[in-house]
Amino acid sequence: MSTRDTLIRCGTEMLTEHGFLSTGIDPVLRRAGVPKGSFYHYFASKEAFGLAVIENYAAYFARKLDRWLGDTARPPLERLHAFVDDARQGMARHDFRRGCLVGNLGQEAGGLSETARGRLDAIFGDWEGRVAACLREAQARGELAPRADCRELAAFFWIAWEGAILRAKLVRGPAPLDLFANVFFAALPHP
Amino acid sequence: MSTRDTLIRCGTEMLTEHGFLSTGIDPVLRRAGVPKGSFYHYFASKEAFGLAVIENYAAYFARKLDRWLGDTARPPLERLHAFVDDARQGMARHDFRRGCLVGNLGQEAGGLSETARGRLDAIFGDWEGRVAACLREAQARGELAPRADCRELAAFFWIAWEGAILRAKLVRGPAPLDLFANVFFAALPHP
Repeated sequence: MSTRDTLIRCGTEMLTEHGFLSTGIDPVLRRAGVPKGSFYHYFASKEAFGLAVIENYAAYFARKLDRWLGDTARPPLERLHAFVDDARQGMARHDFRRGCLVGNLGQEAGGLSETARGRLDAIFGDWEGRVAACLREAQARGELAPRADCRELAAFFWIAWEGAILRAKLVRGPAPLDLFANVFFAALPHP
Repeated sequence: MSTRDTLIRCGTEMLTEHGFLSTGIDPVLRRAGVPKGSFYHYFASKEAFGLAVIENYAAYFARKLDRWLGDTARPPLERLHAFVDDARQGMARHDFRRGCLVGNLGQEAGGLSETARGRLDAIFGDWEGRVAACLREAQARGELAPRADCRELAAFFWIAWEGAILRAKLVRGPAPLDLFANVFFAALPHP
């Protein structure tokens, strides 16, 4: 793994756990075992580093969503459920201490640059588009009522999901994620 | 206003905007115009101060919920809607930069003490109880289907609401709050 990749991996872990504002560059360097001079060879500033971590996470997460939501072996709503189950297992592996990088940084919006806020918003928009497409497929197959507004439901999905992750971190357990999934899927307008 | 009250008021404003971990005591003291020695006269530590701010916010918020949800001049679901509208106006007054103190601190759960995490969780539990009671009243009046699980819906309400506040701060606008309210109230199981 290149030094740049190591820095981004360690940055992703630390920012997912502690956010951007209270994470210094020094702890990232210690974790990565990289000297400070080397950091500034790759990144002009902490801000530039944060943006690179965001882009890397967005690319990773888009692949993850494609894997689950594009799994045509399952019916569309089951794919979305499978994504939720997988994310739940991912949180459990880290003892419910790590959440969603994009949600974490979004929470710190007040202290972030316009560039960073704009990127986070665009990433949520991308995720919404992917979930909306999955819901429209469910609608076309008659799993969802024709009256369902798929884009609105997709936006609601991410809003509530980020809230559920926040609560799962607070209680260090899966109950909020399970409750979210129970209520969300039951509330979808069935045909 | 007493020095202690001034410190708590300034702390509430700053913690609601920036969270606990990245807010130092010094900026709170500067904002409050209080010397450092005086701070330690009232609070043993930053942790003790944070807990006092949490308690003060919880008491303020419980009164706010009582005011809206106890307004028997309106039907129960309309009361919950009125609370949402009021909170939206509150966020607009601060340009969507301040969110919910309990949600903000919950997001930082990884860096908080067990005591603080336990209190935040208990406060959410209290809010859930109040909303569940309002939903049960709606159920008793036939505004909500008998099959509705009021406690579960109340828990979902707070999970999704905190997610909506997070997004409203990110986009600096009311759209996520409006979307939350549209979908949540439409999805309630009507009789």
